[in-house]
Amino acid sequence: MIPIVSIVGTSDSGKTTLLEKLIPELIKKGYRVATIKHDVHGFEVDREGKDSWRHKKAGAKTTIISSPQKIAVINDTDKDLSLEEIRTRYVHDVDLIISEGYKREAYPKIEVSRVAQNREIICTGDKNLIAVASDYPVKINVPTIDINDAKGLADIIEERVIKGHKTEKMRLVVNGQPIPLKPFIELFLTNSILGSLSALKGCQKAGEITIRINTGKNAKSKS
Amino acid sequence: MIPIVSIVGTSDSGKTTLLEKLIPELIKKGYRVATIKHDVHGFEVDREGKDSWRHKKAGAKTTIISSPQKIAVINDTDKDLSLEEIRTRYVHDVDLIISEGYKREAYPKIEVSRVAQNREIICTGDKNLIAVASDYPVKINVPTIDINDAKGLADIIEERVIKGHKTEKMRLVVNGQPIPLKPFIELFLTNSILGSLSALKGCQKAGEITIRINTGKNAKSKS
Repeated sequence: MIPIVSIVGTSDSGKTTLLEKLIPELIKKGYRVATIKHDVHGFEVDREGKDSWRHKKAGAKTTIISSPQKIAVINDTDKDLSLEEIRTRYVHDVDLIISEGYKREAYPKIEVSRVAQNREIICTGDKNLIAVASDYPVKINVPTIDINDAKGLADIIEERVIKGHKTEKMRLVVNGQPIPLKPFIELFLTNSILGSLSALKGCQKAGEITIRINTGKNAKSKS
Repeated sequence: MIPIVSIVGTSDSGKTTLLEKLIPELIKKGYRVATIKHDVHGFEVDREGKDSWRHKKAGAKTTIISSPQKIAVINDTDKDLSLEEIRTRYVHDVDLIISEGYKREAYPKIEVSRVAQNREIICTGDKNLIAVASDYPVKINVPTIDINDAKGLADIIEERVIKGHKTEKMRLVVNGQPIPLKPFIELFLTNSILGSLSALKGCQKAGEITIRINTGKNAKSKS
């Protein structure tokens, strides 16, 4: 699965500004980047009067606009999705996911802190904290870096998050919940599925395989 | 997979207006609806200055905003995605997908035609055309319905698209391309995978199962 790193910090600490400098540095290194912004207050992304806005207003749970250059998806949810759920459902074809926020989740974190704010480090003691980016000297037992050194920060992310990321062979999600697999089980299931598929047309050069099975056991649909 | 119906017609024929009336009728019947709008000219969905807009501007291939009520995904693509690709990648937990446009794709279609437009039926002879909704009498060998009879149209969609839709047990996608499976192969693979998973914790009441395998064969990433 695609590795995740979270940029965290108090409100107004400069997370978005840092991301604006960091993303181009990661692109220079050849990585394709996705970002996930946590918005606890709700947001309005579509524009009043547009066709997709009218679809949503009429009650569509999901509205999608697709063009040759990009696709936009707006989907009602009944809860705050975890980074894991977002990654599984919506992220494809990138090398790294950077989240802005999500400090409570257990992914590698970089905290941003500015002297103009309260100098508070909110992730002190968090074992997932891998660096602090600040504009003042911070005493902490993780590497610290100047808040403007986006290149240095990209190096840290490459070293600690991307290169260190173990790519799982197999990912199993049941009823929307990821199922953890012991290495032997993962290998056994992967090899048995790959063996079964190997004779099928179109599966010889399989890089990414997705299998979706609907057992009909919790079908909510009337169909 | 989720059934698809396409609302087609010339530009300004009233596709969106029809959808605005149709979606509430389908919701009344208990269905959850997703819409897909085809925009060949490109579009701007995000707002200048917003954090997610700044992420995208900085070069992120994908930006996502997630709140407890909804999630928005904006993703750069290198081609016009097919309805199949959009359904596989982005649509979850609905009972029906209605596309606005996509007249060249082979899904059941309803054409909208108004007297104020040129009375032209663009899908004449298309074997996927299941009805015409118009405000004038149309002579054609498929059912015709008044353009304002959204309830009647919802009945047609329920009967012809939702109820007639065969739910596949298994869906196999390799390198982003769906692989068609003969019934015996589908049953064989489904049962062998369900058998392998049956002893795993969390898989006993499995309704929807997603398995993703990365063989590493076409990894584009540097990692």
